[in-house]
Amino acid sequence: MRQSEMLVPTLREAPAEADAAGHRWLLRSGMIRQLAAGIYSYLPLGRRILLNVERIVREEMDRAGCQEVLLPIMQPAELWEESGRYTQYGPELMRLKDRHAREFALGPTHEEVVTALARDEVNSYRKLPFTLYQIGTKFRDERRPRFGLLRGREFIMKDAYSFASDWEELDRTYQAMNTAYSRILERCGLEYIRVEADAGTIGGQGETHEFMALADVGEDTIVTCKHCGYAANLEKAGYETSGSSVNNSGQAEVSAVPTTADKADGNAEGDTLVRIQTPGVRTINELSAFVGEDAQNMIKTLLYQADGQLVAALVRGDHEVNDIALKQVLGAEELILADETALAGHPKLTVGFLGPIGLDLPIVVDADVAVMEHAITGANEVDVHYSNVRPGKDFALDNVGRIRFAAEGDGCPTCGESLVFTKGIEVGHIFKLGTKYSDAMGASFLDRNGRQCAPVMGCYGIGVSRLMAAIAEQYAGEEGIRWPATVAPYHVHLIPMSWKDEQQRELTLQLEQQLIDAGYSVLVDDRDERPGVKFKDSELIGLPVQVVIGRGAAEGQVEFGSHVLAAQGESKRISMTAQEAVIQVKEQFTVRN
Amino acid sequence: MRQSEMLVPTLREAPAEADAAGHRWLLRSGMIRQLAAGIYSYLPLGRRILLNVERIVREEMDRAGCQEVLLPIMQPAELWEESGRYTQYGPELMRLKDRHAREFALGPTHEEVVTALARDEVNSYRKLPFTLYQIGTKFRDERRPRFGLLRGREFIMKDAYSFASDWEELDRTYQAMNTAYSRILERCGLEYIRVEADAGTIGGQGETHEFMALADVGEDTIVTCKHCGYAANLEKAGYETSGSSVNNSGQAEVSAVPTTADKADGNAEGDTLVRIQTPGVRTINELSAFVGEDAQNMIKTLLYQADGQLVAALVRGDHEVNDIALKQVLGAEELILADETALAGHPKLTVGFLGPIGLDLPIVVDADVAVMEHAITGANEVDVHYSNVRPGKDFALDNVGRIRFAAEGDGCPTCGESLVFTKGIEVGHIFKLGTKYSDAMGASFLDRNGRQCAPVMGCYGIGVSRLMAAIAEQYAGEEGIRWPATVAPYHVHLIPMSWKDEQQRELTLQLEQQLIDAGYSVLVDDRDERPGVKFKDSELIGLPVQVVIGRGAAEGQVEFGSHVLAAQGESKRISMTAQEAVIQVKEQFTVRN
Repeated sequence: MRQSEMLVPTLREAPAEADAAGHRWLLRSGMIRQLAAGIYSYLPLGRRILLNVERIVREEMDRAGCQEVLLPIMQPAELWEESGRYTQYGPELMRLKDRHAREFALGPTHEEVVTALARDEVNSYRKLPFTLYQIGTKFRDERRPRFGLLRGREFIMKDAYSFASDWEELDRTYQAMNTAYSRILERCGLEYIRVEADAGTIGGQGETHEFMALADVGEDTIVTCKHCGYAANLEKAGYETSGSSVNNSGQAEVSAVPTTADKADGNAEGDTLVRIQTPGVRTINELSAFVGEDAQNMIKTLLYQADGQLVAALVRGDHEVNDIALKQVLGAEELILADETALAGHPKLTVGFLGPIGLDLPIVVDADVAVMEHAITGANEVDVHYSNVRPGKDFALDNVGRIRFAAEGDGCPTCGESLVFTKGIEVGHIFKLGTKYSDAMGASFLDRNGRQCAPVMGCYGIGVSRLMAAIAEQYAGEEGIRWPATVAPYHVHLIPMSWKDEQQRELTLQLEQQLIDAGYSVLVDDRDERPGVKFKDSELIGLPVQVVIGRGAAEGQVEFGSHVLAAQGESKRISMTAQEAVIQVKEQFTVRN
Repeated sequence: MRQSEMLVPTLREAPAEADAAGHRWLLRSGMIRQLAAGIYSYLPLGRRILLNVERIVREEMDRAGCQEVLLPIMQPAELWEESGRYTQYGPELMRLKDRHAREFALGPTHEEVVTALARDEVNSYRKLPFTLYQIGTKFRDERRPRFGLLRGREFIMKDAYSFASDWEELDRTYQAMNTAYSRILERCGLEYIRVEADAGTIGGQGETHEFMALADVGEDTIVTCKHCGYAANLEKAGYETSGSSVNNSGQAEVSAVPTTADKADGNAEGDTLVRIQTPGVRTINELSAFVGEDAQNMIKTLLYQADGQLVAALVRGDHEVNDIALKQVLGAEELILADETALAGHPKLTVGFLGPIGLDLPIVVDADVAVMEHAITGANEVDVHYSNVRPGKDFALDNVGRIRFAAEGDGCPTCGESLVFTKGIEVGHIFKLGTKYSDAMGASFLDRNGRQCAPVMGCYGIGVSRLMAAIAEQYAGEEGIRWPATVAPYHVHLIPMSWKDEQQRELTLQLEQQLIDAGYSVLVDDRDERPGVKFKDSELIGLPVQVVIGRGAAEGQVEFGSHVLAAQGESKRISMTAQEAVIQVKEQFTVRN
């Protein structure tokens, strides 16, 4: 490909919108452009990367025995009402009406469509199991789109759906997808962790894992244990797999983590509650500064609406409530932080000075709060707190559960060693859905014995455009992104210093042909630009190999640079003959024809 | 691929929605399913066909030097307002609002997005020319979606946009695209005609051609001349190319076609108008029956609103008004048939008995009416017509033009021989847009001399899903679609009569491996079904070659059938050895590895 014929609008400066390193380079190297918040155009180089990622995903899906389909973007609202998600999905679901005022959703995911398909077309165990997948555009009206392709409103995704006769069959598919996802991420050159996760909006009755590409810009906190290899996302960390740690009565096992609160403090106040005047002290930080004690000695009281009912949740001052865990403990369908409207009916609640003592609301107590001995908390009275509070004595422990997020240094739920936090980008997610959708939408089949059963489903998503963004983040360097050869828009950048020089041009064309014949893709910078401009652009574009054809062309000499050499600490280009350059390319990576 | 693992829900009967032969077979062979009116899911076999068509399109675009991009589906309404199309496109444009109530269009086409891109990124002649293309999902809210994939509301299209410094550069790209489109249609195995066309909603200042796949179900009428090869769509037929036949004054050259009206009839009435009582006779057909004369002797008067003003258009009784031609003659922006509201202000107009004599409206007269001598027309009085009407004498010929559609038997505008009508499916369309969009949206570049110029654009669309549907129409047979090898979901169907029979299974697997090694794709019917079911499904699926492995397996004998043999009149399968079968496949078509 001739660079002069290609639209590659490189930029000297990144636009103001760029809020992550990889994103800045994607913009500066002319690979993508923003059309509207969270909505991007892929320009020729960017499109080639995306196609490479798509190809890898497709090959691995096919290898895993999945069948490719293409399901509509526009989905009738009726289907989403059947599953109950038309309301549940909230404002993130893009909605529109057609000319007959019929309502549609723009698919953020395709469980409804695919379950309806199975309901209509699959009626016997003999047609099971199977897995369908598609690669296509998805829509999600993010409240706050950011980091370019990482959190967009229109994005490319591979989604897959499996249908099985029973859980055992599902397990096999789940394992196959697990392997496929690992292979995809490895082929994309990504450093990643597979973590236990929570099912979120998709819902599900079984196991679920996320594949996290490590990156500082990642919006997910990954909790890992260096000792035993345990890994989970923050929502899930500390809870046993498959949602089994919280039983139906809402009673969770009490955490084995020893509390760090001061247990042996036999101070003057003894066991008696002490009222403290705390004028204007409303936050944990303010309280901590005011009384000169650590936040871990305080009890934080938060009010939620659980299915419309007001409840209080207690966690330690240094902990945060995990909504998902709280929701499970309460067995609630919907859980939101109580807003002003909800509080309006309760004039006695003194926000800023809330506490469990004398509070006339259902209370859920975090396990770490339950074992505190001399805690400080609000007195439900303006400008007053209590110290020397003892849970179980000063307020009842009727509903104790693990309702907080893990914190760094917590004990690993598997081996007890200290947990460590890292940041990750969720690039893939696999779920055992079970019969949630088949039940809701009435999909069924006859088993071997003629009994009507609901197919056991799984669903598997991988963000194709997000993979591209994650690679950009991990491979962002000082001068641009150093694209891995598997996804790079071209393998080799040929850079003649002067395209008008006949010897340089000849040698460039010879090299191009030899490389193409060997199965490599080649970009030739044939532009009439100064060498400095060409080098700068070449670094921005970041192909795995650069070959500069300059004055040495007369003697068949070129300058060779590559990511591999750079990784070996060789920052400069190396002089060699054109033939050696071709050999170098072949040694550095092989491509399939 | 094992058929037992694949979702191929064949049907014994076509669903009621199926309104075209190819569409019926696509449904019956389990390749597509309707999700909502004009919105389809592609099941595994259908998806493979679509991917094959996509591959052909992509290869030809790349060969023509185009660069692939991916532009957003969601497009800010502001862009469409800049081009003026947000209103103009009408209800066919799907619209939605995001969570911030910002308006978006779902792209039916991408002129706005791509012109905005060029406006931002291309500022010098040195970056021109270039052509961008994409393959993706488009939306058009058709009033009446039908014929399955032929006229859908969500469909797959390849659209391309070229930017040039001047018209000459555009000409070269236009020719390259013309060649690419011809190659695509040939590789898809389609019988097609390239016709002169009208620019329609996209608008444009220059040449435009459509590529029509011939099919009875086609919604377009193609006008051709067997003698000289002239071909145009009906809207365009008889008008010279590039809109030059109608000059700015609205005066078109008078058609050279001789009128077939009776010119020499010196009957009793002579030149005097005759009033005829015609009680309740309102249509041309009724009038023709009533007076016993051909429709070609009558003048039909139609009322239009041209930019809000009421005008009358006169054509012969056997002709139809061509709205686009009338619009051009009037120089009108908007033209619609006058509705009741428009007529409410003109109580004297007696619909059903309209005629030019004494009509107090601007009148446009078709050239064929202008040369009539003894015509019959309405008298603008209920239940009365005039006969013996002579245009020019009985009413003025102030505005004469060619405002009717061509009719079969008309003289060819190039050679004068008789025109013939056929039906076609518009699968491709290439336009010279000129500077319509660059002007409207303020895209410009500096030319060699530092002058600011508007890039001269072209746009080029080919319906990818529509190509699939057109192939289905042309290759629909008695038992299914006989897919051409270039797009067939698999090349060879291996049909063991009994998968449980070890010899049959062994031979099948051997054949499969040999064919795969030779670069062919293979579908193996390993299902536990009766041979009759397998044969029926095999015909529905319609792969180019079927090899039946039955009792002869023990002796290495198989039965070989193929589209090629069928086309040679050989309807039965031929017995041969498995090795001969492999050789036959290789002789019938080659594939690229």
